[in-house]
This record gives sequence, structure tokens and C-alpha cells, in this order.
Amino acid sequence: MDWILYVITDAKLSHGRSHLEVAQAAIEGGASIIQFREKEMTTRQLMETARKIKELTDKANIPLIVNDRLDVALAVDADGVHVGQDDMPATLARQLIGPHKILGVSASTVEEALQAEKDGADYVSASPVFTTPTKPDAPSPTGLEGLRAIVEAVNLPVIAIGGINEENATEVIACGADGVAVISAVVSAPDITAAARRLRETVEAARKGA
Amino acid sequence: MDWILYVITDAKLSHGRSHLEVAQAAIEGGASIIQFREKEMTTRQLMETARKIKELTDKANIPLIVNDRLDVALAVDADGVHVGQDDMPATLARQLIGPHKILGVSASTVEEALQAEKDGADYVSASPVFTTPTKPDAPSPTGLEGLRAIVEAVNLPVIAIGGINEENATEVIACGADGVAVISAVVSAPDITAAARRLRETVEAARKGA
Repeated sequence: MDWILYVITDAKLSHGRSHLEVAQAAIEGGASIIQFREKEMTTRQLMETARKIKELTDKANIPLIVNDRLDVALAVDADGVHVGQDDMPATLARQLIGPHKILGVSASTVEEALQAEKDGADYVSASPVFTTPTKPDAPSPTGLEGLRAIVEAVNLPVIAIGGINEENATEVIACGADGVAVISAVVSAPDITAAARRLRETVEAARKGA
Repeated sequence: MDWILYVITDAKLSHGRSHLEVAQAAIEGGASIIQFREKEMTTRQLMETARKIKELTDKANIPLIVNDRLDVALAVDADGVHVGQDDMPATLARQLIGPHKILGVSASTVEEALQAEKDGADYVSASPVFTTPTKPDAPSPTGLEGLRAIVEAVNLPVIAIGGINEENATEVIACGADGVAVISAVVSAPDITAAARRLRETVEAARKGA
């Protein structure tokens, strides 16, 4: 698993481009994981869309993670599921998906991150690191200190999410994050592939420096 | 299994009463199955609500069916799941819930009902039988002839849904339906328990006549 650039598709922030277009462009720019996040579609539409994205991620040999909807993840045999604190509790998610699929859990505090580790998470996303317009109802940002505290507390890979962009990615990696997860910095960019590529290069350079 | 009175909770149609209040009142009036249907809540809220309803249905020794959300059904160990034509395909739902849980499938045509039977459904809901304000995007009503055709085509229990009330329940049962499913006729009533009781008595009388 390479956590370097985790791109979350969000059709609403993509200026009319579909999940599929966003995923393909992000993969071309070097996304190492795609998360499919969608709250509006019917279950049938979620499955059909997830299945098409999975063809792309399979071809690129990277994992597809489904946000929240464990039923959709199981139905399309996605590589994993990501749960937030408003979604299914991680212990139960782990029971239902079995030991082999990837389980990601959002954590905004050290306590939540330690709980996620205990509950069987494969990675935690420290979220949000910075304030972000993407999730207006998100918890208080961890800031760089909070991110560092989470990295130090758990033995899992930590992905930083929330307001990450080319400007701050270097300091985020310097805190020990294994990678960055982005929505708007990539999916809202006029050129998604170019934005992904620049961000990936920034993280790669930061990793060498770290 | 007694299909006589299948009540679907819908918080939006319940004039401020919660899923839990609606379920409890319907059970007191003789509901023989409760279906929890909710499209707005977070997964965590869905689970918490479903779990509380399950305490009520367990106590009453009747099944709890979760609409659409197989993840929630599995998480709370509901008795079954109901899928519509916009939800997970029935074959896949059957695979994921295993052979023991109840699988219900909505069918508006004989073809859909036969497919549901082939796909492993335990019952089909012929829906909608009449036009209903509850589901503005529903397919064309089957009418009584369409309901009768579905009853004759499949070897499964058939539950009639869509615009069913005390006035038309008798002719619906005369078409061979095993029971009636209702939303507004019960959950929107000023006295849910009384409405459920009257409808149940109507269906019981109709069964004796049929």
C-alpha cells in the first residue's frame, strides 16, 4: 500500500465532471488510492458508479475505498471501506467486511485514533488537519500539532486530510503523515491530472526531506 | 411469518412522531411486521434508531425489516432487508445477507416479481397497487388486475402496497394478497394504534371472506 496521494471523488465539487472522469484524471496524475464518496445517489446508482471506478483502479493496480457505505463496498467487492465518526462504528465495520479488506477510520483526536487502532483500522485519516470548506460540519482542525500527536500515538499509517494543498503538504509530511488525502485541491482543479501530479511530486520531495 | 399488516415507518409522514413512537403505536395496533425506512440520517443514526426499533419488535416477537440499507440491517442484526428496483439487486442482496434473513423485493410487474422469486426473495411487495402520494417517483400502479397477476405468477407471499387503506383493503385481499403494507394510512393517522387496529380487523375479515 502506498498512501502517498489519496484522492476522494466528490461530484459536487468537480465542476460538472463525473466521479469516473475525476477518478481517471486523478489516477493519471498519480493518485495511489481512490475513495468514492457520494451521499445523494440511490444504492443502485452507487453500485453502478463504484463498479465502473473499480475497473479504473483495478487497471491502475491501486485500491478503491468506498466511503461510509459498507453495503456498496461489499456489493462491488471494493478493496475497503472508510468510516467517519457518523458512520458505522469501526469494530462492527471490521466484523462485517472481514479481516482482509482495508478499513479506514477518520480521527480528529488522539483518543479517536487510538480507538480506531483498537477497533481494527488499517489506517487512520487525521481529519481535518486544517479548516476546510468541503465539510462544514467537520470537527475542529487538528492543526499540525494535533496531526503530529496522532502520528506519534498510533502504530498505523496516518493520512492527513482537510485543507491540504501544494503549499502545506510539505509541513504535513514533516509531521510524519504517510500521505495526504485531498478532495478540492485535486477534484476542483481545472486540470485534475496536473494538480494531482504536482501534489504527488510535492509529497515525494517532502518524504525525501523528512 | 404473518404478513397481515406490514407497517413502514416514515418519520416525514408521521407529523412529528419519531420512528420509535410510530413503531410502538403500530405494534400495539397489531402490526405483524415493521419496516424501517429512512433516507436522511447518517449511518450511525440509522443504526441507533434501527437498534431501538428492534428492541420493540423483538419484544413483540415480530420481524424488523430494514429498507434498502443492507449495511444497517447487518449491523443491527435485523430480521431482513427490503430492496426496491433502485436498491441493491436481489441476487446480490441475498448473497450478502445469507440464506436465513428475510429478503423482500418490490415488484410493479409480473416480470419483476418472477425475477425476484428467481433471485431469492422471500416475499414480493406488489407496489404500488394504487397511486400514492408517498412515493411520487413510483412506477405506474398495478391496479387490482396487476396485483392478481403477480399473485398468480409467483409462489411467494405477496404483500400489497401503495394507497392501501380501510376502504380498499378488502378487495386487495380478495385478489389473493397475503397482507397489506401501509405507510400513510397508519403512520399519518392521528391515532396510529387505532388506525392499525381497524386496518388489521378489515384484513382479517377479508381473509375469512376470501
